[in-house]
Amino acid sequence: MNYPTIPPIDNAAAQQAGIRQNNLTKPPGSLGRLEKISIQLAGMKADPLPGVSRKAVIVMAADHGVALEGISAFPAEVTPQMVLNFLHGGAAINVLARQAGADVIVVDIGVAADFDPSLPGLLHRKVARGTQNMMKGPAMTRAEAEKAIAEGMAVLSSVADNGIDLIATGDMGIGNTTPSSAIVAVMTGLPVAKVTGHGTGIDSAGLAHKIQVIEKAIALNRPEPNDALDVLCKVGGLEIAGLAGVIIAAASCRIPVVVDGFISTAAAMIAEGLVPDVRHYMFASHQSVEIGHQAMHKYLGLNPLINMNLRLGEGTGAVLAFHLIEAASRILREMATFAEAGVSDKEKGSVLTAS
Amino acid sequence: MNYPTIPPIDNAAAQQAGIRQNNLTKPPGSLGRLEKISIQLAGMKADPLPGVSRKAVIVMAADHGVALEGISAFPAEVTPQMVLNFLHGGAAINVLARQAGADVIVVDIGVAADFDPSLPGLLHRKVARGTQNMMKGPAMTRAEAEKAIAEGMAVLSSVADNGIDLIATGDMGIGNTTPSSAIVAVMTGLPVAKVTGHGTGIDSAGLAHKIQVIEKAIALNRPEPNDALDVLCKVGGLEIAGLAGVIIAAASCRIPVVVDGFISTAAAMIAEGLVPDVRHYMFASHQSVEIGHQAMHKYLGLNPLINMNLRLGEGTGAVLAFHLIEAASRILREMATFAEAGVSDKEKGSVLTAS
Repeated sequence: MNYPTIPPIDNAAAQQAGIRQNNLTKPPGSLGRLEKISIQLAGMKADPLPGVSRKAVIVMAADHGVALEGISAFPAEVTPQMVLNFLHGGAAINVLARQAGADVIVVDIGVAADFDPSLPGLLHRKVARGTQNMMKGPAMTRAEAEKAIAEGMAVLSSVADNGIDLIATGDMGIGNTTPSSAIVAVMTGLPVAKVTGHGTGIDSAGLAHKIQVIEKAIALNRPEPNDALDVLCKVGGLEIAGLAGVIIAAASCRIPVVVDGFISTAAAMIAEGLVPDVRHYMFASHQSVEIGHQAMHKYLGLNPLINMNLRLGEGTGAVLAFHLIEAASRILREMATFAEAGVSDKEKGSVLTAS
Repeated sequence: MNYPTIPPIDNAAAQQAGIRQNNLTKPPGSLGRLEKISIQLAGMKADPLPGVSRKAVIVMAADHGVALEGISAFPAEVTPQMVLNFLHGGAAINVLARQAGADVIVVDIGVAADFDPSLPGLLHRKVARGTQNMMKGPAMTRAEAEKAIAEGMAVLSSVADNGIDLIATGDMGIGNTTPSSAIVAVMTGLPVAKVTGHGTGIDSAGLAHKIQVIEKAIALNRPEPNDALDVLCKVGGLEIAGLAGVIIAAASCRIPVVVDGFISTAAAMIAEGLVPDVRHYMFASHQSVEIGHQAMHKYLGLNPLINMNLRLGEGTGAVLAFHLIEAASRILREMATFAEAGVSDKEKGSVLTAS
């Protein structure tokens, strides 16, 4: 499979943004990470005054064969039910996206249920009716994994064709913290127990069982840590594959990607494994309650923006973080400079008459 | 001086909000602090479905006699220049308030310069042309401090009369990290060096000098730690007094207050010292770079929402945090319940037909 080329960060645009930040009417550096984000955005978008008004979250839904092992607090039927909830606008991601002024793009990449083909708003990109049970063998074939990545890339391309400044990743899939923990365990080499959490709310006995399931699936399938596609096939998921495709395609178009929580960051690890330069186009949105999330951020060299004890997925943390990224862009674009406002600069000490 | 009564938190409304959170289409608790904030809002506003659409930031500007001691990186003339920048919409607080859909209310509570009385948008509530130099004696008289508190209360009342759901505090005043460090040192008993930082950007020699100035001012004036008004008079500031008045009046009207950074939190400490129950109506917005800020939050029992390495003031961190508080409110009000969406509940396991 051929992946697109990722353009280098535009250092000249980033530098111009940095110079402007130091001329805005505030002590240099006093807006902390907002200033840094604006400079990163300029480099990503090759634009010294980057705007982020057009935003969307791509929510990939899929089911997991491993859910048969009883690793989730919710039954698998919730996946298609929540897809309908997304389409009706009643889920958390809908509420937060409305607040952010972002579109919600709902994709069936592998739900184990059939939706009415005429259902308004759903993108039908189903690769399979869920993955296979990774306790019994690989979650999917290489062909399925590559198809799901390609579908994710195609979804991003269609969104990009309509014009988009900022993308968030989102997921829905009962059981999907299990493949995500498997991915981070395999790729970082950390023990499964150190990167496996309570997901949507299993108890401590459930957690012990979930850890065993993941350990057995890894022992059976022996994914190769340095081969992201192999990891994805053997212990991944279809929404994880699709989101990896979204991330790769976005980076290839200079569209910054705001990565959501545990499942989305697993997808980011896969994307980075397939196409290392994509990491330059990612923002980590939030620090999830899931204990493996920190290890993912460390692996990717990302520092999340928000820590609100979220553990929902759907893209909720990423869409919540849109606000901070938009704030960074607006500060850079809209604030007055010292000269424009007639404010005395710290270094130059100039006293200008206020207009 | 008589302060208004602070109504108790409405536990019934908070409880109703909590019950609703557990019936929304997400695993209970999965939206972490957003859920908790929505429950707090319900209790504060005595409304099980609290809305926060009408928002404002009150920016109090004042000068400081102690600026003569060379404790700031910027000259005092910047205070009135920045007031004009606020009125022209070019400052960081204007940009972030536009994004948040919040009004910016600019108040001259003690700037050492005279503004044109007909200047559009400025509230003229000047108590004095800056404080006195606390290295030479008290920063202000008790009468001045009480006048400034009363002006802050009056400003809040006028804003509340027009209808407001959420208030942020903001400050402008060259030199004002110095009285704020003095306040936290006196009220917590911590050494001045542990709660004094670089403000707008002084170097390490400047910081050593600033610490000495604060230590001398405290030694000279001997503020009584358990008497917040005494602390305010001797080592405080007029914008700090005014913001304390804003906080007290807001709490008395059940209007939640989002407290900004180091200077605003000093005002919150004074407000809480004068009227302890106000603390139930506060949200801490962000963790400032100023090293004394954590001690303030600990003293008040508040846990900030954002950590973006901000150190600007003006209310920027508080207005940035409006988004998270509004998100909490919207989640509570707008999300579908399990029953409404036909999604299977974890505990009840009911399978409803999606509509």
